Amino acid sequence: MEMNYVLNSMWVLIAAILVFLMHAGFAMVEVGFTQSKNAVNIIMKNFVTVAIGVIGFFLIGYGIMYGKSLAGIFGTNGFMLINSPQKYGKISFEVFFFFQAIFAATCATIVSGAMAERTKFSSYIVFCIVSTTLIYPLIGHWIWGGGFLSKLGFVDFAGGTAVHAVGGIAAFVGARLVGARDGKYKKDKINVIPGHNIPLGALGILILWFGWFGFNPGSTLDITSPLTAHAAITTLLGGATATISSLIFSTIRYEKPDAGLTLNGALAGLVSVTAGASLISYLGAIIIGTVAGIIMILSVEFIDTKLKIDDPVGAISVHGVCGIIGTIDVGLFSTNSGLLYGGGFKLLTIQIVGVIICAITVLVLAKITFIIIKNIIGLRVDIHEEVNGLDTMEHGISAYIDL
Amino acid sequence: MEMNYVLNSMWVLIAAILVFLMHAGFAMVEVGFTQSKNAVNIIMKNFVTVAIGVIGFFLIGYGIMYGKSLAGIFGTNGFMLINSPQKYGKISFEVFFFFQAIFAATCATIVSGAMAERTKFSSYIVFCIVSTTLIYPLIGHWIWGGGFLSKLGFVDFAGGTAVHAVGGIAAFVGARLVGARDGKYKKDKINVIPGHNIPLGALGILILWFGWFGFNPGSTLDITSPLTAHAAITTLLGGATATISSLIFSTIRYEKPDAGLTLNGALAGLVSVTAGASLISYLGAIIIGTVAGIIMILSVEFIDTKLKIDDPVGAISVHGVCGIIGTIDVGLFSTNSGLLYGGGFKLLTIQIVGVIICAITVLVLAKITFIIIKNIIGLRVDIHEEVNGLDTMEHGISAYIDL
Amino acid sequence: MEMNYVLNSMWVLIAAILVFLMHAGFAMVEVGFTQSKNAVNIIMKNFVTVAIGVIGFFLIGYGIMYGKSLAGIFGTNGFMLINSPQKYGKISFEVFFFFQAIFAATCATIVSGAMAERTKFSSYIVFCIVSTTLIYPLIGHWIWGGGFLSKLGFVDFAGGTAVHAVGGIAAFVGARLVGARDGKYKKDKINVIPGHNIPLGALGILILWFGWFGFNPGSTLDITSPLTAHAAITTLLGGATATISSLIFSTIRYEKPDAGLTLNGALAGLVSVTAGASLISYLGAIIIGTVAGIIMILSVEFIDTKLKIDDPVGAISVHGVCGIIGTIDVGLFSTNSGLLYGGGFKLLTIQIVGVIICAITVLVLAKITFIIIKNIIGLRVDIHEEVNGLDTMEHGISAYIDL
Repeated sequence: MEMNYVLNSMWVLIAAILVFLMHAGFAMVEVGFTQSKNAVNIIMKNFVTVAIGVIGFFLIGYGIMYGKSLAGIFGTNGFMLINSPQKYGKISFEVFFFFQAIFAATCATIVSGAMAERTKFSSYIVFCIVSTTLIYPLIGHWIWGGGFLSKLGFVDFAGGTAVHAVGGIAAFVGARLVGARDGKYKKDKINVIPGHNIPLGALGILILWFGWFGFNPGSTLDITSPLTAHAAITTLLGGATATISSLIFSTIRYEKPDAGLTLNGALAGLVSVTAGASLISYLGAIIIGTVAGIIMILSVEFIDTKLKIDDPVGAISVHGVCGIIGTIDVGLFSTNSGLLYGGGFKLLTIQIVGVIICAITVLVLAKITFIIIKNIIGLRVDIHEEVNGLDTMEHGISAYIDL
Repeated sequence: MEMNYVLNSMWVLIAAILVFLMHAGFAMVEVGFTQSKNAVNIIMKNFVTVAIGVIGFFLIGYGIMYGKSLAGIFGTNGFMLINSPQKYGKISFEVFFFFQAIFAATCATIVSGAMAERTKFSSYIVFCIVSTTLIYPLIGHWIWGGGFLSKLGFVDFAGGTAVHAVGGIAAFVGARLVGARDGKYKKDKINVIPGHNIPLGALGILILWFGWFGFNPGSTLDITSPLTAHAAITTLLGGATATISSLIFSTIRYEKPDAGLTLNGALAGLVSVTAGASLISYLGAIIIGTVAGIIMILSVEFIDTKLKIDDPVGAISVHGVCGIIGTIDVGLFSTNSGLLYGGGFKLLTIQIVGVIICAITVLVLAKITFIIIKNIIGLRVDIHEEVNGLDTMEHGISAYIDL
Repeated sequence: MEMNYVLNSMWVLIAAILVFLMHAGFAMVEVGFTQSKNAVNIIMKNFVTVAIGVIGFFLIGYGIMYGKSLAGIFGTNGFMLINSPQKYGKISFEVFFFFQAIFAATCATIVSGAMAERTKFSSYIVFCIVSTTLIYPLIGHWIWGGGFLSKLGFVDFAGGTAVHAVGGIAAFVGARLVGARDGKYKKDKINVIPGHNIPLGALGILILWFGWFGFNPGSTLDITSPLTAHAAITTLLGGATATISSLIFSTIRYEKPDAGLTLNGALAGLVSVTAGASLISYLGAIIIGTVAGIIMILSVEFIDTKLKIDDPVGAISVHGVCGIIGTIDVGLFSTNSGLLYGGGFKLLTIQIVGVIICAITVLVLAKITFIIIKNIIGLRVDIHEEVNGLDTMEHGISAYIDL
């Protein structure tokens, strides 16, 4: 009905605006947790990500994600919003597009963090274009745009897979291909390269958390539904419990309350409840968040010490690993049909299969994209640029003066 | 009616999200106005405060605050939201809890600022648990949860006492017990230990102001009421006039426009109109704000030079003193029944008595809590840690590198 | 009808709150893009701007802008909101005032950026009072308050002229009169005085962009209108395309992707779509934004190298030039009656004439104001203060310690 249409459109419009601020959050996290000599470069990447994300999604991405489905694989119309309808479901079509376009830009950002401090600006831009026009919309079509995974019954409420796992897996591929930062892995030793501005990074995480209340509750697209407020609470509980569990676990494991891991713990919790925020109980959110805070730490350690993949901000663990686990968690904790709520193995199986399909697809597409980029323009700055910092070398400017 | 239910729930949900960002504001204010060597520690405390505040309030606090009242003293059910209803008054119960849980976390944060730079991380965590599960919910029950103060007619619209005075008084107790920072009070001299990052502190204050528009107007829980917009304007006027009055007063008193005091002036004004934001006139807000900006400065000076209590960020004056005065101001300026609006002394008396009861209660409870903590795990880091900074000593990390 | 009244009031209230955070954005941009020795001074100016903007607009400005019109020139009642009505059009009067008061404060801020690092604190305060009580409300009356320009058919949807061009032109006058910073223009050389904290500046721009989604879409004052969501999308597209065009253009022109110009490019795009956000098509927003990103760079270069006016943050180009061009763009791109949409030259002519009238008025009023200030209290700090920095000299404090 008309009034609900206005209410829901208003809610999603506001939620989208909250999500927009997440770009400030991502930028500050990536800047704060890396070295000062690359801060301007990282900021430039974040600005470009927003801009390309929006334009790429407008021109091509939206059509592939939400256009008329070709065999459940990709959409085929709606490019540049041509002949767009007035409504999308219960809300204004323009509001829906606005929300989706801002979402699309968040996915690419995840990659910029994991590849920070040694990736060419131009190479990142090319990847960003591919990500927002092709990779993200394709997976998005399968999950949300009427594609085959949604028909299979795969559940991803707010993007645990569609946004975070996709971003995190592409980050994994990119960080592996571009190689570690100079001096990170010595023969016998793994060096910690600490972030240069923890307060700014912490601000970024709190801003992200703030934006997440648009990201998750906004994803109902329906303010009249009790699920919206429920998703707000599970988001709050997920972030809070993971903060505590990562604080305790890092204190036990490393004998001090580790700041980087505790702050990332909040994000791990938020990512982990994203796939099921509206579907899990309070207790479910508490368990999922608590576990995510611990798994993230183990994952960061494993990726760093065993795989020797250099991920300066922990994006692969936070977004990739927790995104995947959170999506599978839906099969366990969904109060509708999760295993622990008497739903049997059906949903759990679908969730696992769905995540695997998405993961493999992104692995392949991201790898092809990065290899083409590597061969044509190269992925990595030269060692001279890296040592001196990308800011002065690529942008002719320092992030800080006279501090 | 149904539509109002949706509207009000939506409004309070959004207001709660705005309040959430206040945690970023508190963190930046506390970081910016203290020394760089303790910045990570302060951030960790702020993250832990959010997490514990939310979880503690979910598990225990909410029940004590809003559960079925035992003789007007404390609530006795609703723990973990078990058997929670669908509605709370005119809004969704889940939205109401979400708003309240985020509020609860703000109260403890105030304490972390006043005790910054020398308090043990573990001790603060213990106090934070007590504060969010017991002290804040108890007072909250008396004022908002159907307790004896609300039955007496005590008015605290958005938490001038319930949040700010409670936090400020606990901060007073804590700062006094933990003692001053090393080097603060010398035999003949009181040293100023300046904040290390004023721009970040200023950002924090503007973020707090932004969040206050959720804190105060959101507290009507009713967007259909004209009081909501009215509270927005009084909040704006209170903050603005106190900024100016503290600017002018500090310039006169100290012969320069003092930045720390002017920025804190904005907060003083915001705190001072919180108890009566929906009940006072524009002129009332202007007077209350103007006075608050001056009183805060006198209070900061008095606490520092006479009481020799070391409050690095001025939290006792800003939240405690202005919270108390703002609550009493309701008895003077309430356009319903304030003394200046022909209401006689009744409301004024109730406000004064109510504030005194709450203040004494918090004094006693906070003192007991801190003394127990002091005796079991100790309140204060050792001098070696304090001199070298809590960041490297407690967390093994520096807030800034290569700036 | 009643329900729409509540919905629209709620929307505009929230939009106003979003706009409020723009003050944090302005503060961080101005701080980040100037020298560290003046950071506290800039922050103080921003706080004072908010406070004076709100109070000045409450006492006098609102009446001049929206009071009963005297011959279409200025309003004559409504000062201090005395005898204010319950409604303004479709929304609550108090919400409308709240939105307008926060807007008013943004206009003066623009000037503080362009005159940063050498203007007396007291002089700026005086200008700020004149701006928010007289200059801005006067032009605002002509355009939005029932004045002669609105009767002529002049269109300025969200303040491309009323806010940005007015601010930018006053900034031009002020920056010219106060003179360049010491060392900026040497005999044969134009020195770049780089900003001291680019991450903070970048954060400011993203916060501004966030607030712009209140500024533009909020200006419909009507959430039931499809124009609101449309304005959100054009705002998104305008900012995004200008980011890209300024990135590309700066790379071509200066052989590196210039950070300062790319970040300012985002703002240029946002300013340029402000006058017509609800009236232009997607394609229109893309073209307007793309062009703005380039023109802003040419303007920055022209003002710096040809006019030798020292504008540390580029405010004249971003707000003044792009505000003017964006207003004229409405005459070309308005889908109702723009030249390119078959509307003939009528609207275009009105837009050009209107902008010229406003520009000349502001030029004259700002010049008179600044000359009076110059003669009575002086515009500029002495060279000793400027060299040592305004922070220690005017405020007795440093922005940063121990970094």
